[in-house]
Amino acid sequence: MGAGANPDAALALIKPAVRAIPAYGLVAPAARRKLNQNESAVDVPDTVKAAVLERARRAAWNRYPAFTPSDLLARLAERHAWTPEGVLVGNGSNELIQASLAVTVGQGTTVVSAVPTFTLYRLLTVVNGGRFVGVPLGSDFAFDIGALVRAANDEDARVIVLNSPNNPTGSALPADGVARLLDETGALIIVDEAYQDFGGPTAVPLLANQPRLVVLRTFSKAMALAGLRFGYALAHPAIAAQITKAKLPYNVNQITLAAAHVVLDHTGEFASRVAAIRAQAQRLVQRLGEIKGLRVFPTAANFVLIRCESVPAATVFRRLVDDHGILIRDVSAAPGLAECLRITAGEPADVDAVLDALRAILGGRV
Amino acid sequence: MGAGANPDAALALIKPAVRAIPAYGLVAPAARRKLNQNESAVDVPDTVKAAVLERARRAAWNRYPAFTPSDLLARLAERHAWTPEGVLVGNGSNELIQASLAVTVGQGTTVVSAVPTFTLYRLLTVVNGGRFVGVPLGSDFAFDIGALVRAANDEDARVIVLNSPNNPTGSALPADGVARLLDETGALIIVDEAYQDFGGPTAVPLLANQPRLVVLRTFSKAMALAGLRFGYALAHPAIAAQITKAKLPYNVNQITLAAAHVVLDHTGEFASRVAAIRAQAQRLVQRLGEIKGLRVFPTAANFVLIRCESVPAATVFRRLVDDHGILIRDVSAAPGLAECLRITAGEPADVDAVLDALRAILGGRV
Repeated sequence: MGAGANPDAALALIKPAVRAIPAYGLVAPAARRKLNQNESAVDVPDTVKAAVLERARRAAWNRYPAFTPSDLLARLAERHAWTPEGVLVGNGSNELIQASLAVTVGQGTTVVSAVPTFTLYRLLTVVNGGRFVGVPLGSDFAFDIGALVRAANDEDARVIVLNSPNNPTGSALPADGVARLLDETGALIIVDEAYQDFGGPTAVPLLANQPRLVVLRTFSKAMALAGLRFGYALAHPAIAAQITKAKLPYNVNQITLAAAHVVLDHTGEFASRVAAIRAQAQRLVQRLGEIKGLRVFPTAANFVLIRCESVPAATVFRRLVDDHGILIRDVSAAPGLAECLRITAGEPADVDAVLDALRAILGGRV
Repeated sequence: MGAGANPDAALALIKPAVRAIPAYGLVAPAARRKLNQNESAVDVPDTVKAAVLERARRAAWNRYPAFTPSDLLARLAERHAWTPEGVLVGNGSNELIQASLAVTVGQGTTVVSAVPTFTLYRLLTVVNGGRFVGVPLGSDFAFDIGALVRAANDEDARVIVLNSPNNPTGSALPADGVARLLDETGALIIVDEAYQDFGGPTAVPLLANQPRLVVLRTFSKAMALAGLRFGYALAHPAIAAQITKAKLPYNVNQITLAAAHVVLDHTGEFASRVAAIRAQAQRLVQRLGEIKGLRVFPTAANFVLIRCESVPAATVFRRLVDDHGILIRDVSAAPGLAECLRITAGEPADVDAVLDALRAILGGRV
């Protein structure tokens, strides 16, 4: 098929910084229990699905989605006591991370983040020609606001991007963290709150007085909508109007827009689910702490990070899949995460299964 | 709600080139007949919709879409006699334009295009820090390959992006156009074939020997799927692997992936529809040509560009909406398109209605 033609001249047209970095990747062997992507273990309620499908059935698929989905923007604004002109919807919150970085980061722009964190921040910074400065998280992966302030000021950062609670560590920002960063630096602060439904403070109330703030939210985790891709950004209207320029028109499809509406009709049900997931995450932390050979880190999210201290993480990961049908996330190749694995808090039976399996693997029993 | 806080310090963090350009916009008053977005006038067949909804009902919405939708990539590759490793799927082809430019365009990179054309190329070039060089289309908006070659070489263009058939002019590249650009320049050639199902040559066969080529396709137009957002790129696998780095993971939602599969099960039906739409577009060209006060341009697409020579375009646009319930696209504000309007070829009744209305408006009768 000609894919053997020599691509060297074509590759030379790709930006060198892009060529130098690996793509975002996922290694996910099939397994019975899927605890590797911090998804909701349970699908959306049947009533939600039925309502979305009925809206989808009635929609004209041949027509572009609304250029501005005003009703939805108004509902999201109301949910966060913000203004509709300061809300942008995205094909997942990733798209709004991308757009926020695209309008701020150019050749040589410094972006500061707390690491280890979600790898997309570095990847998108580099794609935009920027310089990613990772400030290590502190003891037990706690955020070190002082170190972030110093790095941002020393490196003349234009942007600070933080994930709270942080993936894959589970750590949440301290209550005054974002306020301090806003006060003590001149950077645009992007706070990715993909997991904030599960715990930790939200930066949303700061929006009222701080135009240098962008808060990102998603329906992929707490709202069980990973498969439909819906996220949004909250920002000062003037900043939202700039981020819009890097956001593609019609970026959220009609069915996902309908799903977002229906989810907002059922927030009570989702709140009960979130409480149950939080309880499972805390149970996981407690019980994992009783297993010898594991270091367990505190979490404010729906997942738990562990460090394997006796058996290599790669072995634990592989035996969980092969012998127990449990897929978790091996994050041990990332800097600062040697021997670390991430486990999503699923249903009680999932938590029991992963605990039993880890006891078997680490206790030497198979 | 605090949106009154002074955003100046925050705006100063936005790249100046981004601040200087307007966002992508659409002015679309409500109207009975919607001929303004080059959509299919008819929704997908009921059988297609039912099959997609059944797949959607069975899907686990709480789970992310497949990291690599291998089955779909294989089917798209087969459709174009290409290789699955050289296919990327997107949330509309716009996302793949964005990703292709993001990995190639940095500070000062020159992007050449034929203008007037789809405004997103310029917008995304500027967001990436690049310099957009528009080469005017020739007589009747025909592509001028010689002028494109000269501009690309004189300006040291890294990328040439072309839309064929071109929106909003309807002009298609000459049969040897892309081959000449590949031979006579060193640029990466991105050919956006969003409307190629309706007419004009395709650059796809050139992929076999030319790694400097990216071809973009969409299901939004001929496949009547604008509301679900699906597009794809065809490129050498080595180039596709680089573009992937700027493409967000899980960018196409589960339901849209299902829809793409179902559409590929029904290509015969869509081919008949495309033939009917082409016939309506040609009828529109012919009949418009008989109306005094209009200049009509040839088209290879599902829309027709006209220039108003007696009544101002803005007046014609407004009277079509207000007096006749017909919404078309006013493109007259764009450079090179003074007094021009774009009309999507819809159903026969739509074509009749717009012809009658234009005769009424331009003949002085209301």
